[in-house]
Amino acid sequence: MKIIPIHSKKLDYNVVIDDSLEKLIKTELKIETKCFLLIDSKVSRYTKYFIETIKDIYVCEIDGGESSKSIIKGEYIIQKLLELNFSKNDVLIAVGGGTIGDLGGYIASTYKRGMKLIHVPTTTLSAIDSSVGGKNALNFGSFKNVIGTIYPPCKVLIGLDVFSSLDERNFNNGLFEALKISVILNEELFNIFENGKQKEQLAFVIEQSILNKKSIVEIDEDNENIRDVLNFGHTFGHALESITNFSLLHGEAIANGMLLISKNQSYYETLYNIIKGMNCPLITDKNTLLSSLDYIKNDKKALDEKVKIVESKKIGTYKFSVLTIDELKGRLE
Amino acid sequence: MKIIPIHSKKLDYNVVIDDSLEKLIKTELKIETKCFLLIDSKVSRYTKYFIETIKDIYVCEIDGGESSKSIIKGEYIIQKLLELNFSKNDVLIAVGGGTIGDLGGYIASTYKRGMKLIHVPTTTLSAIDSSVGGKNALNFGSFKNVIGTIYPPCKVLIGLDVFSSLDERNFNNGLFEALKISVILNEELFNIFENGKQKEQLAFVIEQSILNKKSIVEIDEDNENIRDVLNFGHTFGHALESITNFSLLHGEAIANGMLLISKNQSYYETLYNIIKGMNCPLITDKNTLLSSLDYIKNDKKALDEKVKIVESKKIGTYKFSVLTIDELKGRLE
Repeated sequence: MKIIPIHSKKLDYNVVIDDSLEKLIKTELKIETKCFLLIDSKVSRYTKYFIETIKDIYVCEIDGGESSKSIIKGEYIIQKLLELNFSKNDVLIAVGGGTIGDLGGYIASTYKRGMKLIHVPTTTLSAIDSSVGGKNALNFGSFKNVIGTIYPPCKVLIGLDVFSSLDERNFNNGLFEALKISVILNEELFNIFENGKQKEQLAFVIEQSILNKKSIVEIDEDNENIRDVLNFGHTFGHALESITNFSLLHGEAIANGMLLISKNQSYYETLYNIIKGMNCPLITDKNTLLSSLDYIKNDKKALDEKVKIVESKKIGTYKFSVLTIDELKGRLE
Repeated sequence: MKIIPIHSKKLDYNVVIDDSLEKLIKTELKIETKCFLLIDSKVSRYTKYFIETIKDIYVCEIDGGESSKSIIKGEYIIQKLLELNFSKNDVLIAVGGGTIGDLGGYIASTYKRGMKLIHVPTTTLSAIDSSVGGKNALNFGSFKNVIGTIYPPCKVLIGLDVFSSLDERNFNNGLFEALKISVILNEELFNIFENGKQKEQLAFVIEQSILNKKSIVEIDEDNENIRDVLNFGHTFGHALESITNFSLLHGEAIANGMLLISKNQSYYETLYNIIKGMNCPLITDKNTLLSSLDYIKNDKKALDEKVKIVESKKIGTYKFSVLTIDELKGRLE
């Protein structure tokens, strides 16, 4: 069992990593207050362990995915919490991928001005990225992540065995976020990807990714400056994700984004081979790539035709740059 | 012009108090980013000063009151912010009483995970109480303040001349919160009420109330322990507010609550005369008082038939006590 303590302005908390999710549930969730278990139906096989461990528990199983992050779904859960007389001292446990974490996190952060929250990420993407750092969000119609808060959980439990049920594509989806972290912050981690050992050394990959993310969010929890570094690959990534109507998974879109923004770097070939080797669909169609520029122009990050991006001139380092749309276009050629 | 700096975990900010709201708008709002002005139609006479001062401003005038704190109204404003392409670096200015502050505060705290917020309270209640300390909330159906956050503004502007348009009842409504603060924290302030000088010395009353509230919220911003002291008078107060279907204003309900909880104290007669002198409607009907106990039993603060309350044994001091419902009943006799 590994414990990574995270310092937050509001609440310090631990990320606890173990080989077995069942064991984590049984040892880390001795909770005396009421619990609301918001669990993705994909991992409902774990519900029984929560029920066995927690005395006063209400189970709410829902289907994850982007559509679960709606205001209507949020209202449905708040209605349940009210009916069951949940107070701000009670606990919401969000078990699932990033969308369940976003939904549960938003509700916990706003219900009675903030109830206790525990994240149990069950995808590599949520374990490596979204469960740490407190960000949550709901969508607003077709607009992604319009309303949200930054609200720390009081605990994050990561059971490594849960990821074995993911298919290869969804497994790698989260690993692309670890690869992203390695390029900007962690050369040793990058070497693991270069040697194709990321699956074999999954525990180390997750731990290192979280330690690196910790080093950033502890300095800039509210995302006012340096936390933007975690957006490496996201400028083109978000654009491609949207343009392809989310046929690319988030991690895959970021992988494409990393390649595009790194075209002029010495490590480009290595990065390309890693991403290709992980069977990431690569967007090469010129029209799609060009239309990503239009998306970027309209995106919140584009100020006066200039875009603030993150680059890496050397593996394990990062640099903020401001590029014009024309300069960005150059990266596509 | 008086400036009271408030320290918050997220953001330090100033409360700026001046005789003239027009002057405050013209000198304190030299804003270069986009502004969304959420203004109560009752004070729309000030809109022109905002427009004259701020270059890039969008005006949204709404009717205040409890019904404005709905999720639907919140969604309407978020839709507007999206259409107008507001970013998290832009500013929402909430001008009005507590309900406009709650609505604007909640939206600002969640839109794109938090945009900038300026409070311009235009009632004594919002100036003395709700605009400082960061609490906001929306109602959920008939349930009050179900969803909310604690989110600091980046500035609070209080123009004293705006209160002269309030009728006596609404003027005193906020002063009952100042009286509450005086009982638990500030004997000098209590003496002003005892001498009936609270209207004459309004600037001092508001300043002292905010300084006292500052001393509490700076220690316990997230309301985990000592901030509960501000709930003096609220146990019976909330109950009476609800039972009487909000025919009592909030401050009036708190005034009744203070009297009930202080029945056995040496200063009771003085407090009674102050509140009576301020023309507060007093609830004396036995059945109404008794049914407040049922409300309290069902309220979030009631744990195992015991209720945590705040008392004052001597003006300017406070004490937390845990009473049984039977002991509370004793205060009604």
